[in-house]
Amino acid sequence: MRFVRVNMTDQSVDVADVPAKYLPLGGRSLTSSFVNDEVPATAHPLGKNNKLIISPGLLSGTRAASSGRLSFGSLSPLTKGIKESNAGGTASQKLARLGIKALVLEGLPGEDNDKWYVVKVTKDDVIVEEADGDLISAGNYEVGEKLRAKYGDKVCVMSIGPAGEYRLLAASIAVTDTDGRPVRHAGRGGLGAVMGSKRVKAIVVDDAGAGEVPVVDAEAFKEASKKFSKAVLQHPVSGEGLRNFGTAVLINILNEAGGLPTKNFKLGRFAGANKISGETIADVIKARNGKTSHSCHPGCIMGCSNVYHDDKGEYLTAGFEYETIWAFGANCEIDNIDAIAKLDRLCDDFGLDTIETGVTVAVAMEAGVIPFGDYEAAIKLVEEIGQGTPLGRIIGCGSEITGQVYGVRRVPTVKRQGIPAYDPRSVKGIGVTYATSTMGADHTAGYSVTANILKVGGDIDPLKPENQAALSQNLQIATAAVDSTGLCLFIAFAVLDIPETLEAVIEMLNAQYGLSMTGEDVIALGKATLTVEREFNKRAGFTSVHDRLPEFFQYEVVPPHNAIFDVPEADLDAVFAFADKASGEDAS
Amino acid sequence: MRFVRVNMTDQSVDVADVPAKYLPLGGRSLTSSFVNDEVPATAHPLGKNNKLIISPGLLSGTRAASSGRLSFGSLSPLTKGIKESNAGGTASQKLARLGIKALVLEGLPGEDNDKWYVVKVTKDDVIVEEADGDLISAGNYEVGEKLRAKYGDKVCVMSIGPAGEYRLLAASIAVTDTDGRPVRHAGRGGLGAVMGSKRVKAIVVDDAGAGEVPVVDAEAFKEASKKFSKAVLQHPVSGEGLRNFGTAVLINILNEAGGLPTKNFKLGRFAGANKISGETIADVIKARNGKTSHSCHPGCIMGCSNVYHDDKGEYLTAGFEYETIWAFGANCEIDNIDAIAKLDRLCDDFGLDTIETGVTVAVAMEAGVIPFGDYEAAIKLVEEIGQGTPLGRIIGCGSEITGQVYGVRRVPTVKRQGIPAYDPRSVKGIGVTYATSTMGADHTAGYSVTANILKVGGDIDPLKPENQAALSQNLQIATAAVDSTGLCLFIAFAVLDIPETLEAVIEMLNAQYGLSMTGEDVIALGKATLTVEREFNKRAGFTSVHDRLPEFFQYEVVPPHNAIFDVPEADLDAVFAFADKASGEDAS
Repeated sequence: MRFVRVNMTDQSVDVADVPAKYLPLGGRSLTSSFVNDEVPATAHPLGKNNKLIISPGLLSGTRAASSGRLSFGSLSPLTKGIKESNAGGTASQKLARLGIKALVLEGLPGEDNDKWYVVKVTKDDVIVEEADGDLISAGNYEVGEKLRAKYGDKVCVMSIGPAGEYRLLAASIAVTDTDGRPVRHAGRGGLGAVMGSKRVKAIVVDDAGAGEVPVVDAEAFKEASKKFSKAVLQHPVSGEGLRNFGTAVLINILNEAGGLPTKNFKLGRFAGANKISGETIADVIKARNGKTSHSCHPGCIMGCSNVYHDDKGEYLTAGFEYETIWAFGANCEIDNIDAIAKLDRLCDDFGLDTIETGVTVAVAMEAGVIPFGDYEAAIKLVEEIGQGTPLGRIIGCGSEITGQVYGVRRVPTVKRQGIPAYDPRSVKGIGVTYATSTMGADHTAGYSVTANILKVGGDIDPLKPENQAALSQNLQIATAAVDSTGLCLFIAFAVLDIPETLEAVIEMLNAQYGLSMTGEDVIALGKATLTVEREFNKRAGFTSVHDRLPEFFQYEVVPPHNAIFDVPEADLDAVFAFADKASGEDAS
Repeated sequence: MRFVRVNMTDQSVDVADVPAKYLPLGGRSLTSSFVNDEVPATAHPLGKNNKLIISPGLLSGTRAASSGRLSFGSLSPLTKGIKESNAGGTASQKLARLGIKALVLEGLPGEDNDKWYVVKVTKDDVIVEEADGDLISAGNYEVGEKLRAKYGDKVCVMSIGPAGEYRLLAASIAVTDTDGRPVRHAGRGGLGAVMGSKRVKAIVVDDAGAGEVPVVDAEAFKEASKKFSKAVLQHPVSGEGLRNFGTAVLINILNEAGGLPTKNFKLGRFAGANKISGETIADVIKARNGKTSHSCHPGCIMGCSNVYHDDKGEYLTAGFEYETIWAFGANCEIDNIDAIAKLDRLCDDFGLDTIETGVTVAVAMEAGVIPFGDYEAAIKLVEEIGQGTPLGRIIGCGSEITGQVYGVRRVPTVKRQGIPAYDPRSVKGIGVTYATSTMGADHTAGYSVTANILKVGGDIDPLKPENQAALSQNLQIATAAVDSTGLCLFIAFAVLDIPETLEAVIEMLNAQYGLSMTGEDVIALGKATLTVEREFNKRAGFTSVHDRLPEFFQYEVVPPHNAIFDVPEADLDAVFAFADKASGEDAS
């Protein structure tokens, strides 16, 4: 395995053996350890001392089902804490097959250097080339097309759009999917701005000629892999719900539960929910010859994604997900699904986190910049981000900045990151995750919606404050481990309900690396990963004060349950007691 | 003495006796204690739980020279920590003569209430009136004129301009001066936004019929007061330099010292310094029949202020100070003094902190929004703030936000507040104050320029890291005490060099209140004030990480001395060890 460093100060490349301490790590466990080791926590996120590390998961590139997730790590310009942003697409498997454990972008070109660069990764080499002029200011769709035209149809392109070039705080890094489209994003935390600060417009990964990922015990791996796939497919969520209706199946479920944040978190149900539900979208997609059950990377057996056509039957967008549909839909009171799809397309093209952007548009609506429900105005607003107008830059910097610029009180963020698609007052378990996650408000960091709403892995009343902290803690630990494997987080449904799933994951890891890990070792990996993240965040200035939801969730009730967020602060502070203790600190 | 609370939730007024614990306090010691007692440190600064307290100093309203300073306290929307913002003008003495120890604005009008209000304070009553329609969106000049036309020429008006109405983070509260002009400002920390959030457009203070402030031992007070005035006038800075050339006398001094931040803190000397120096300005003022040696409140014997006329001899601005002239001048590479005066006028009228706004314009110049040195573009940019355009709102939210929106790395702020007119690399003592002050970057919190540059109160090499922390600590403690008396901070020059000055201050306090305080008690008052401020900031989430300068000051040298900021972190952390210990915390 190779550990590749691209120093953008002089555009030099260093290819080295993987440092011993990083050998057992992959994905999030590697990116977070690396950031904690090498990035000063008080560095300017866009300065010369920040680094961007990209690492496939431990199982990526193997034949393990759904193992193509990729971790991007950095000091986040948005949260100003540690960030692991996780994306699908085809890069992870290609990098793993090329034997690349991690690709690091570090340093900054000199202030008088206004060139943009493309980093090209092949079997033989990693080189830095000056970007062709027509790539500059181009959207991700155009960048992907041009680079595939130049380097071949099979390469994967990771690129930034105008948002990343402008170094906006909601800027993402796009990763092309199985169709070569830039629709999978390392969305959260503004890592596109870090890539933009280093003046890297795109990374092209060409795995032509690469062999297979070495597996120590091929037979055992094959067995475990079969067992794993069987378990994942056996679970009603990962084997059926996601495949049939995509992630947007959650719209009706959350609306029913009264936990679908509506009108900038004013309400828990959206009158137009049915018009933007997974069921409706699946019908629309089928009627227009789009595609449901689409996989974002080869070998995914869940196929939660889709390809969405416009009303003329032409391709409009893909990877059109629940969070996006909620953010621009219910949260902005927009019930026009084609308009929401158009907004998704714009975000993919400009290189923007759809969650952050949707939450921000709703905050702008609350500020009176545009009216709630006005989808034409919303599209125009997002188009301004691509144009780099002052208003566009405000919106492109996310909800916290937009709230401040417009003097808005009700700004749903934690650690400056916009809160996703579950109201923390009526789904209190996810509220604990939002509050305490090292990543800022992030549902994927510990998806308590499982036991709270879906009744997967237990049944904990979403409206009661009891037991939510323990639920979130267990899920955050497990998630940090899953995010290190390269497996899609959606396998967690099966992990929680079907014991063979986790057994099979451990058996695959053991077979691939010749190890004899146990379940306890997996827990330990999750805990160790969270511990380094907490350490970093502490050095970055985070305290328990930052492990809280915004004030208004404590006094403003949300219908229909008229709930507030009332999980005790002591419960929130208990979530990471293990980590603070592990890093030698009195957690009391 | 009365303690007045105006509850904006229902526009009710409560006039009560002063709570016993607040009786010995005044000015900053009172505002900071009150904010620490009553404002939740994690409240939204623009939400219903924040409060704005206005308090005259302990000696305000008496015949003590230069005792008309007024303290405004709140949770700052800019720094998100505790804030005491200090202003001159005529309100402090009037409030004190009306027997008002503190005026508190609390609560918020309901969300469906879009009215604006005027709070009127008279001998008999405090009432809340709906603001006349023509006050809304009006600048401070127009507001002051209209309210004086309505309520009489002798009232003092404290008001917000459009910036406060928009709740921008650089919004100030204007206080009219001896000529009734809105040129004295509680500038720092965005307290105009807090007043705007409470929908109070102006506070009118009419002291008609008020008696004198009671003094226990009138004879002793008179003696002490004479001794005090004599000492202040005896010092070359407070008795001569400030009177003759105003605060802008510092331009040439700092330029000579290589500590005048130029081009957004790129350089330590400005080629155009002579065109914007105090000496030049004094000449221009005299040639145009303006006024030097102007006093911002009755009874000030230093008269550091001025009235500045345009080239037609018409009034343009007043209170045209060093910090403003530096911020829009050297720091923006603008050497046109009339343009800088126009920018000062715009800030006074819109209700903006000139330091924050000037620092922000330079950051916008660094971002390429407008070119360095282009004063016409700078004027247009600041005019946009008044218009409330998206770009105007960005700039009006200060340097930290502007830096983020435009992806700028070199943003000179501490605790999100723009760094004032002394480069911390070549005047390291003031760097310690910027880094550690509870207020965010603030030269007035502990003006180490004294011993570093002016050789007042000692002589400490500004380029060496040694002894700067102790210097800053002593000055911060003394300043917190001075800020509690209502005395202008400029008496500190005399305090530092002439022992009779502090003796006289203590004798005045003892005579007024019938006390027997000593110098140690004054130090204790300063320490106690800083201790409550640290307590609040800790609960707001500040750690030692926030007591640091931005990263670039540690690696980017500033000419002509090619200095970096190299005061050890341990020294910075030692500055407030006494306060952290006092609040029961291990400071190690």
